[in-house]
Amino acid sequence: MATSEPTASGADPDPNTANLRPSSTTYDQAWMHGCTRKLGMKICGFLQKNNSLDDKGRLAGQKNLLSCGDNSDSRFRRTESDFSNLYARDLLPAKNGEEPTIQFLMEVVEILTNYVRKTFDRSTKVLDFHHPHQLLEGMEGFNLELSDQPESLEQILVDCRDTLKYGVRTGHPRFFNQLSTGLDIIGLAGEWLTSTANTNMFTYEIAPVFVLMEQLTLKKMREMVGWPNGEGDGLFSPGGAISNMYSVMIARYKYFPEVKAKGMSAAPRLVLFTSEHSHYSIKKAGAALGFGSENVILLSTDERGRVIPADLEAKIIDAKQKGCVPLFVNATGGSTVYGAFDPINEIADICEKYNLWLHVDGAWGGGLLMSRKHRHKLDGIERANSVTWNPHKMMGVPLQCSAILVREKGVLAGCNSMCAGYLFQPDKQYDVTYDTGDMAIQCGRHVDIFKFWLMWKAKGTIGFEQHIDKCLDLSQYLYNKIKDREGYQMVFDGVPQHTNVCFWYLPLSLRGMPEGAERREKLHRVAPKIKALMMESGTTMVGYQPQGQKVNFFRMVVSNPAATQSDIDFLIDEIERLGHDL
Amino acid sequence: MATSEPTASGADPDPNTANLRPSSTTYDQAWMHGCTRKLGMKICGFLQKNNSLDDKGRLAGQKNLLSCGDNSDSRFRRTESDFSNLYARDLLPAKNGEEPTIQFLMEVVEILTNYVRKTFDRSTKVLDFHHPHQLLEGMEGFNLELSDQPESLEQILVDCRDTLKYGVRTGHPRFFNQLSTGLDIIGLAGEWLTSTANTNMFTYEIAPVFVLMEQLTLKKMREMVGWPNGEGDGLFSPGGAISNMYSVMIARYKYFPEVKAKGMSAAPRLVLFTSEHSHYSIKKAGAALGFGSENVILLSTDERGRVIPADLEAKIIDAKQKGCVPLFVNATGGSTVYGAFDPINEIADICEKYNLWLHVDGAWGGGLLMSRKHRHKLDGIERANSVTWNPHKMMGVPLQCSAILVREKGVLAGCNSMCAGYLFQPDKQYDVTYDTGDMAIQCGRHVDIFKFWLMWKAKGTIGFEQHIDKCLDLSQYLYNKIKDREGYQMVFDGVPQHTNVCFWYLPLSLRGMPEGAERREKLHRVAPKIKALMMESGTTMVGYQPQGQKVNFFRMVVSNPAATQSDIDFLIDEIERLGHDL
Repeated sequence: MATSEPTASGADPDPNTANLRPSSTTYDQAWMHGCTRKLGMKICGFLQKNNSLDDKGRLAGQKNLLSCGDNSDSRFRRTESDFSNLYARDLLPAKNGEEPTIQFLMEVVEILTNYVRKTFDRSTKVLDFHHPHQLLEGMEGFNLELSDQPESLEQILVDCRDTLKYGVRTGHPRFFNQLSTGLDIIGLAGEWLTSTANTNMFTYEIAPVFVLMEQLTLKKMREMVGWPNGEGDGLFSPGGAISNMYSVMIARYKYFPEVKAKGMSAAPRLVLFTSEHSHYSIKKAGAALGFGSENVILLSTDERGRVIPADLEAKIIDAKQKGCVPLFVNATGGSTVYGAFDPINEIADICEKYNLWLHVDGAWGGGLLMSRKHRHKLDGIERANSVTWNPHKMMGVPLQCSAILVREKGVLAGCNSMCAGYLFQPDKQYDVTYDTGDMAIQCGRHVDIFKFWLMWKAKGTIGFEQHIDKCLDLSQYLYNKIKDREGYQMVFDGVPQHTNVCFWYLPLSLRGMPEGAERREKLHRVAPKIKALMMESGTTMVGYQPQGQKVNFFRMVVSNPAATQSDIDFLIDEIERLGHDL
Repeated sequence: MATSEPTASGADPDPNTANLRPSSTTYDQAWMHGCTRKLGMKICGFLQKNNSLDDKGRLAGQKNLLSCGDNSDSRFRRTESDFSNLYARDLLPAKNGEEPTIQFLMEVVEILTNYVRKTFDRSTKVLDFHHPHQLLEGMEGFNLELSDQPESLEQILVDCRDTLKYGVRTGHPRFFNQLSTGLDIIGLAGEWLTSTANTNMFTYEIAPVFVLMEQLTLKKMREMVGWPNGEGDGLFSPGGAISNMYSVMIARYKYFPEVKAKGMSAAPRLVLFTSEHSHYSIKKAGAALGFGSENVILLSTDERGRVIPADLEAKIIDAKQKGCVPLFVNATGGSTVYGAFDPINEIADICEKYNLWLHVDGAWGGGLLMSRKHRHKLDGIERANSVTWNPHKMMGVPLQCSAILVREKGVLAGCNSMCAGYLFQPDKQYDVTYDTGDMAIQCGRHVDIFKFWLMWKAKGTIGFEQHIDKCLDLSQYLYNKIKDREGYQMVFDGVPQHTNVCFWYLPLSLRGMPEGAERREKLHRVAPKIKALMMESGTTMVGYQPQGQKVNFFRMVVSNPAATQSDIDFLIDEIERLGHDL
């Protein structure tokens, strides 16, 4: 059986950077020759392709079926598809749509696997920055506008390439910009499968396997939190902010169940407590759920960003004296900026004393439960009533994957159920306690579990542990490298608790300048300036922000499994290269 | 250049139904022979695979690099990967991880494309039903439990096959169970790309292209709603329930902005109005947001499930007399069970008269805006203050894809912003009005836009229109077929407004039985029984539910682009086959 020869070409060989035309190379895809029939279907070999998209003229109008060498069985035919003459309507479920469908999907997969390869290649850029107006004007034919008429599949493939080209490689070893970084291959495969299954978590009926995977995985997570036998409830929700919102809703339902039917007017003035360093979603939940953001009381922290328990107790007493009813305390397990872990045990003591709901927002730090070395930072989490834990952050699971875990069984369903008869019929033939939809504030719910389950299978708990330990080691490496280095000033002293390393970089012009308004003002502008230069050169990305009275500083975080010490070194070099002479 | 011969095999040829071992066929994957180098990377041909997973003994321990025919360049080498000896840790970013990574992903893609093919094949089952306890016990080695130690990539691939095997083919032409059905190939490609890009909608910084696509698409949707120049705001949210929740939050913020800071105690007793046929998410939002579910007042409907405007006005007056403050009215554009469209213009008149927020829940029916023939059913929607529209329902976009659209610009941000400095820095180098994260109740937000944008590009508005018109035609075909057929009784008279066709099927034993308690009781058990038999035979799936005083009936809906008249015929035949003698 013959296949065509590879054709060398001098044109842009990179389908992700080439514009309008992909690789000018000619290539084959020879496929699935082992074919038999079953159930009347062809599980057949085809897809022998010889398609040069940059040579449209040559192929235009052609759609040849070529028999494969000495095998004239149509199951082994090869086809040339001319995507410029094919449209979405030619794909499945269209008649004869199978072949173009598989060919089209394989073209897409080629684009994606090229992107995956390049993501891990340090010689590629993290991003190719353009301003909004530039992209809106249309970059070299990349037109974002929608129209009434369909575009050819060739144009759709070009659109896919361009979308990736002008995006940001969040899996690049030098992308440190968010708490969620990296591109896990198993997780990616899991997401591809999830998209293909295209179902919905609300009933066992249409997602039997995923519903059970979620149940088993949540139980395992509750075991790691330390609740007896992993008992309790939980859900995967669309992100940590929603998980935190759940915790507030459940706490309210537990203490004031009448609010569900009667509204907030049935309860006294309820107050929530959370650290001034905590995630803004607690305040957002307070506003959304009808408590009011002013009734979310911010707790003072020590210099490392950890809640001061005495301040919590003082504010509880103060609130009670003002006629408010303390309801809920959020302890942060890994704060967004400092990576601080609140002292959960001391907070739990106070919650017990005053009979308050204790939530631990472990969206960022929850992953440390996987590490025998670091899980002590979450000591006391087993005393929490609810926990937020986002595997899509520290554990490298693709976005989105966030769990809300609840210690007491039943309260989540009690809080949210509306018993919609059209969806959650009690008279199904299976055990309908597996229908979890009525526990959620969502109706349809995306399948976030599979990628995580598959990663856990593929890595084992031990694999997550290794990843987490490595990220924390890398952070310590960075901390050791810069803590006494000229031009650096740490935002707080001491080894970071999590992978967050917060620091100012001082250009030469600022070193030795006396403290004061002028220095503050100038220093405030340094990080944004370096970040802008970084994005324009596209070499690396790291976050910055002010915090309280502290002017803009860099917040370095490591969650990217691809990062190594050399990437940390690179970041430092890059900051110095771009910032030294500011 | 030679490739190996296809090898016929008598063993199970179906990788999706084979257990523990995939296809025993031997096949090739010849790849990307057109190779050049750029930026030091290999964009290279490899992946010539000859890997029979069922012959583990033969391959165990082997990992051969074979040069391809007369081309000894390593770029053209072929590799045999033995996945039983490979683990997640061997994939990228591991050293030399590129080859096994691409090979592994290609194996996954093969599983997925097989699944895609079979999804559209009417000779396959819709599902292979098992009870929860059966799956939990482990079906022929499919073990859902997680462990501390990693599993081989071979096992991971088997897990992927098994996951699909025991799932439900929601894209099958005979899957009619939900409002979201079908498997759109362009949408699928879009989801695969989205997963690969693995980014987050909260800032332009890390999702420049997706943020702009969202902006342009939302504008286009607002134009179709009929708001001048498509002005306004919007977001893609995790499903219609959350979109509806947004609408209630925004209405509250518009009329009582002080609630954001002060809580519900700053407002009078607010009431919301929605049809007794509306989606339960309005009530759920009322409970969650602190209004109380009792303050969600249900409106009476006519026999077709449409709100009676006079009832709305009467209940507004009644609420005011009781000292409540009417705030918000939800008009449903396509109800879940009956597919009813509330008379929006008449409701809008009342909302204007009493100065109430008008929301249209077009989660299910919004897609009809795409159809010149059917959009009149939503007449008056341009008078709404906010609209929910789920492209993942009637428009066949993969789950999840739901938009909340708001006519007045700024109110969404005003309602939800908390100005988190660490994420939404005002001193970035680009126009930060493109950072949309602070408008959302989520922090991280999944990229739901790309698949939809890509489908719109590929089909054009006209393609969506054709799909919608076809689905409505099919429903009318079903309606015409059964309305006078023996053994059928329609739940309501007249041609359905949407694709919902609601009917009872009467087994022979019930025909001619006089109305009364006994008949009701028996009839109530018919649909669940037929549905159970349907799921056990795996041939088709359709929903049922009771509604108000009406006992269980079938709710047939058509949103599946793969469905044809023959599938409607099949459903009817199947109901009769399974139900005739009950």
